[in-house]
Amino acid sequence: MSGNSFGKLFTITSFGESHGPALGCIIDGCPPGIEISEADLQRDLDRRKPGTSRHTTQRREADEVQILSGVFEGKTTGTSIGLLIQNTDQRSKDYSNIEETFRPAHADYVYTHKYGFRDYRGGGRSSARETAMRVAAGGIAKKYLASKGVGVRGYLSQLGPISIDENNFDWDQIEQNPFFSPDTAAAEKMEVYMDELRKEGNSVGAKISVVASGVPVGLGEPIFDRLDAELAHALMSINAVKGIEIGDGFAAVEQKGTEHRDEMTPEGFLSNHAGGILGGISTGQDIVAHIALKPTSSLRLPGRSINIKGEPIEVITKGRHDPCVGIRATPIAEAMMAIVLMDHFLRHRAQNADVECTTPVISG
Amino acid sequence: MSGNSFGKLFTITSFGESHGPALGCIIDGCPPGIEISEADLQRDLDRRKPGTSRHTTQRREADEVQILSGVFEGKTTGTSIGLLIQNTDQRSKDYSNIEETFRPAHADYVYTHKYGFRDYRGGGRSSARETAMRVAAGGIAKKYLASKGVGVRGYLSQLGPISIDENNFDWDQIEQNPFFSPDTAAAEKMEVYMDELRKEGNSVGAKISVVASGVPVGLGEPIFDRLDAELAHALMSINAVKGIEIGDGFAAVEQKGTEHRDEMTPEGFLSNHAGGILGGISTGQDIVAHIALKPTSSLRLPGRSINIKGEPIEVITKGRHDPCVGIRATPIAEAMMAIVLMDHFLRHRAQNADVECTTPVISG
Amino acid sequence: MSGNSFGKLFTITSFGESHGPALGCIIDGCPPGIEISEADLQRDLDRRKPGTSRHTTQRREADEVQILSGVFEGKTTGTSIGLLIQNTDQRSKDYSNIEETFRPAHADYVYTHKYGFRDYRGGGRSSARETAMRVAAGGIAKKYLASKGVGVRGYLSQLGPISIDENNFDWDQIEQNPFFSPDTAAAEKMEVYMDELRKEGNSVGAKISVVASGVPVGLGEPIFDRLDAELAHALMSINAVKGIEIGDGFAAVEQKGTEHRDEMTPEGFLSNHAGGILGGISTGQDIVAHIALKPTSSLRLPGRSINIKGEPIEVITKGRHDPCVGIRATPIAEAMMAIVLMDHFLRHRAQNADVECTTPVISG
Amino acid sequence: MSGNSFGKLFTITSFGESHGPALGCIIDGCPPGIEISEADLQRDLDRRKPGTSRHTTQRREADEVQILSGVFEGKTTGTSIGLLIQNTDQRSKDYSNIEETFRPAHADYVYTHKYGFRDYRGGGRSSARETAMRVAAGGIAKKYLASKGVGVRGYLSQLGPISIDENNFDWDQIEQNPFFSPDTAAAEKMEVYMDELRKEGNSVGAKISVVASGVPVGLGEPIFDRLDAELAHALMSINAVKGIEIGDGFAAVEQKGTEHRDEMTPEGFLSNHAGGILGGISTGQDIVAHIALKPTSSLRLPGRSINIKGEPIEVITKGRHDPCVGIRATPIAEAMMAIVLMDHFLRHRAQNADVECTTPVISG
Repeated sequence: MSGNSFGKLFTITSFGESHGPALGCIIDGCPPGIEISEADLQRDLDRRKPGTSRHTTQRREADEVQILSGVFEGKTTGTSIGLLIQNTDQRSKDYSNIEETFRPAHADYVYTHKYGFRDYRGGGRSSARETAMRVAAGGIAKKYLASKGVGVRGYLSQLGPISIDENNFDWDQIEQNPFFSPDTAAAEKMEVYMDELRKEGNSVGAKISVVASGVPVGLGEPIFDRLDAELAHALMSINAVKGIEIGDGFAAVEQKGTEHRDEMTPEGFLSNHAGGILGGISTGQDIVAHIALKPTSSLRLPGRSINIKGEPIEVITKGRHDPCVGIRATPIAEAMMAIVLMDHFLRHRAQNADVECTTPVISG
Repeated sequence: MSGNSFGKLFTITSFGESHGPALGCIIDGCPPGIEISEADLQRDLDRRKPGTSRHTTQRREADEVQILSGVFEGKTTGTSIGLLIQNTDQRSKDYSNIEETFRPAHADYVYTHKYGFRDYRGGGRSSARETAMRVAAGGIAKKYLASKGVGVRGYLSQLGPISIDENNFDWDQIEQNPFFSPDTAAAEKMEVYMDELRKEGNSVGAKISVVASGVPVGLGEPIFDRLDAELAHALMSINAVKGIEIGDGFAAVEQKGTEHRDEMTPEGFLSNHAGGILGGISTGQDIVAHIALKPTSSLRLPGRSINIKGEPIEVITKGRHDPCVGIRATPIAEAMMAIVLMDHFLRHRAQNADVECTTPVISG
Repeated sequence: MSGNSFGKLFTITSFGESHGPALGCIIDGCPPGIEISEADLQRDLDRRKPGTSRHTTQRREADEVQILSGVFEGKTTGTSIGLLIQNTDQRSKDYSNIEETFRPAHADYVYTHKYGFRDYRGGGRSSARETAMRVAAGGIAKKYLASKGVGVRGYLSQLGPISIDENNFDWDQIEQNPFFSPDTAAAEKMEVYMDELRKEGNSVGAKISVVASGVPVGLGEPIFDRLDAELAHALMSINAVKGIEIGDGFAAVEQKGTEHRDEMTPEGFLSNHAGGILGGISTGQDIVAHIALKPTSSLRLPGRSINIKGEPIEVITKGRHDPCVGIRATPIAEAMMAIVLMDHFLRHRAQNADVECTTPVISG
Repeated sequence: MSGNSFGKLFTITSFGESHGPALGCIIDGCPPGIEISEADLQRDLDRRKPGTSRHTTQRREADEVQILSGVFEGKTTGTSIGLLIQNTDQRSKDYSNIEETFRPAHADYVYTHKYGFRDYRGGGRSSARETAMRVAAGGIAKKYLASKGVGVRGYLSQLGPISIDENNFDWDQIEQNPFFSPDTAAAEKMEVYMDELRKEGNSVGAKISVVASGVPVGLGEPIFDRLDAELAHALMSINAVKGIEIGDGFAAVEQKGTEHRDEMTPEGFLSNHAGGILGGISTGQDIVAHIALKPTSSLRLPGRSINIKGEPIEVITKGRHDPCVGIRATPIAEAMMAIVLMDHFLRHRAQNADVECTTPVISG
């Protein structure tokens, strides 16, 4: 168990390197009887897949997923589900020049020290390529959650200096631009900004927000597996993520108790500063998380580094890269939130299926 | 395994409610031969303990820890370590008035729905009282890490509107004021601010920073148990935490790749925007994390809520509370970081003890 | 996680040495709302406790269990349950002579090599004293299972050369003799045999059988966590156990398929050679397991061994010991089976609570 | 985590049904730098593979394994290893007749009740077909263990009424007959017996023994993850296994302490009744385990059963089956023992790598 599994009851375990023959995933603990087809998983894979606009890497991957087990006559059987995606566009030669190089801000240096050597082809296991399997697995969690009335969706809330305007927020616009921006005016500014950035050969960070609605009250396992703690774990495990906020997040530092507390009435909560989680347990309100992604580490602009002999070198990263990894991160963040909620849905009913609570549930 | 254990190899499992007879913890996986005494653990327990200044709750707890097993002739035996702290100052009657009340921003409502009823005495298991055992367990991790040259220490970096000034930063001042502030000038402002806040009957948020130095390169288990992901899990599991940053955190959103990347030379890294973690693995630089804590939920100022029948009520929380939970959070955050590093130190050597790497390690 | 926890959802974690101040256990994942009192747990603790007849060790331990958390107003809260038993009759001096000695068939030699040194007082953690906490935890599992119509009970089926006669089998006799024998005639022979054995200063092995009735069809998680595999794990983890059988066990080696298969009719199964488990999943029939316990290793008869310097020595074990550890093993085996069933009951409903099966259940 | 993973640090997770497109496995926690090729794994796969003699099923499967990740330039990288075996000879129509039938002694009835329906093609996930992936994963464990001087090998010790004669025991004969019998005379009797059995259309049980040599002292994690307890779990999880013995196993029931205890001298242990494990920890002697396998459940001889409507039926199982599943079980049992030892080797060094023990190790 050295880090390639996630989830206690709905468990995903994955394998695959950027330039290996294939990526794979095993999902264990999925309830039986769920109607699942490859098409159900393909939708989000296509949202994450590279090469769909000029603002992402031009590597071409169909990212077509095969279901190899655990589904029979169109329904999950309750046994482990095997998923496979063939890598079709590796171009190893693009990367052979970095065999002896440690690229700044990449995992090259740490992998070499941890494991003694590394698969240098496109970053090997440390490449964000593996997130394709997270998205595929998340598709199964989303399908199940939907059957329970739970929806998970995300959006890009900031790209470098450009934030979305809450007054222009429109969920329906998110799939209508290459950035998953709910604000079309902001999306236009992002187009211009990204075109300049690409010319410059530089990269930039981004902020993604994810929201789950229809979550029942009660999900989360205090004290260490609080729902927010598991979300933080899941979201921080996504490549390039450097920060996590639940609800108001860091804004809470300057808030007073009277500002932050979400008062309750029989009609429901009067605000959602908590982001839908109190004491590590879902309140029934929308669950709101924000993540900060660092700028892509692969740049055409030269940087100082060392090689495997420890000698000083100058590095320029050629090849095909996303100038902003955040752009494709929205479906990945949705997938990880869905996986956490699915896992906690099962964990909750394992222990609490007998519970009868007479206190009325107030609306989110 | 419903949430009361943390750590895969160095595992802590705890029990205890705010007003139960005792708190306890079992530590499993601790290497044998470590010299440990109750005094080693008491130091941090005393730093966390309530009632040490007028700025924290006036509840009086000696928080004296007993080691009941796993230590023989002053050294850990490699078997499970049992720790116990008796609760000595419960005053249940302080809390009996809230039996049928859901306090805003507290876990009362969610616990009642999740479990069907709740231990209403002082918040039961949801009280920050349980963090005493985290600090005790962290003391063992700190002792072991110190023998490997790793140190973990934290400080309060912001209290409400008052931030520390990096130019006045002095590690030696942290234990010299009630706030764990490394900036004495800021600490004086905090004294004044807290006195006013207390009169007002309100509470406020805070930001805590934790730094680990001397960490070897290579700790962290990609892809899901990255060191930063596990730190996020551990720190977010602390009561009242709403945000996590590793290194530059949310500042990375607006950074360009050329700004964020930490360039390397044979003499070492030229910066530490990454907070000592790349690809989820420690780089050998200081590991830097920041956490946001929300304001205390217990206020003397009235708030709207409902009772267990779902009827509207007005709540005023009497009793003894910390007006800023962040003030006592520094040793707790240190403990959780130490526990994560200890766990990953063991996980790393389990898999990689055979590794010989010829690439030189550059200084942090 | 180095071996002191058992169970994935109903998890017990224990600590304590034979001659330490106390034994303890934390139970995590217990459903809320179960009525539990210390008296509920004491019944089985008293059945296991030493000194109840001349055929067991004369060490006197009240084995009184305290519930320190997780139970409020007489019902489990769903949070972790802390249990504690004080050791009252250690007599360390009885054991001080073995500080530098490795007793044959004891864990002295392996503990010293594994951990570098050992707690030599009464075997420290390797003593069967720890099984008291298994019995206490099992009491909670039994209480919950009973509320679901599941009963777990065991008996001594063989003591050395003396087997019980199935024709004299009477469940009501089991608590009426010091051996948990369902056959009173056999129990009388055992009395005589044990008296001679004790005079001789020797020890002997035993066989225990455990049966669970009322188990619903469907418990067990293929392929690795089959119900029989988890039972084997749980039962083999009891001190001195050297063999496990499910149903016909080793008799199946010589059986033909036509003899072994349990045929089915609408009225139920026609036999139970399988011991109530097929494909690793409960069939609804009685679950039947048998375990072999080796003779006690502590003997008054001299044996050859070595000391911690590796020098040859002759060992005679004085002190107070059970001449047949099997005699007190019945409640321990019941407890472990109850814990496994409880864990799998929760695991099953986590994944399969939505399942509707139209196929009729046939009677066990 | 519903049962398709095994091992805490060296973890295998598998998927695949008898008649699905493929079987797969992910190995997590494998140390980096081990030279592994598909040929290394193929050797044991060929030993287990069907159709190699007239005494096993005539289903033809090449069982060719592909390594899809985790190995780079011939060496393990420390990241997760993906293995895949295509199913090439399913013949679904052979099985379509059992869609509505519950075959006696098969998992049909329990799978249908647990999951609501089942993949009826060749037993789906409950088929022993999945053991191919155990053997492939075990090949990696064997390769690593060999580099540490540990060898694992097994043999058939009894087939129905025919036991091997210890006086004719020859390790070199095991691969020279279709039964893995170390006794050629016994193997000849087995040929005759199996030919008659096949004509008769019946099946029979078997006993397999597995031995690990060169195991260092100290492996095993008391108290629940004792080495013998984990071996029992691993071996009982193999299809058709009904009993487990460590060392003398059930013979210990009638032994006296003076017979069973393995006395020690500076030159080593004088016997090995314990099977190489004391207190759940390896002693350095050979680790010896025996398992009982039930007769194959698929018979040509009619048996009474019910269908999915609960109606009485008569079942005759056609298709291609092993008349004695034990015959091919030897490499499977070896694989599971190797996986357990590998896992415990890593677990041991995680906690105890710092240990220095001055007591000399005596020879096994």
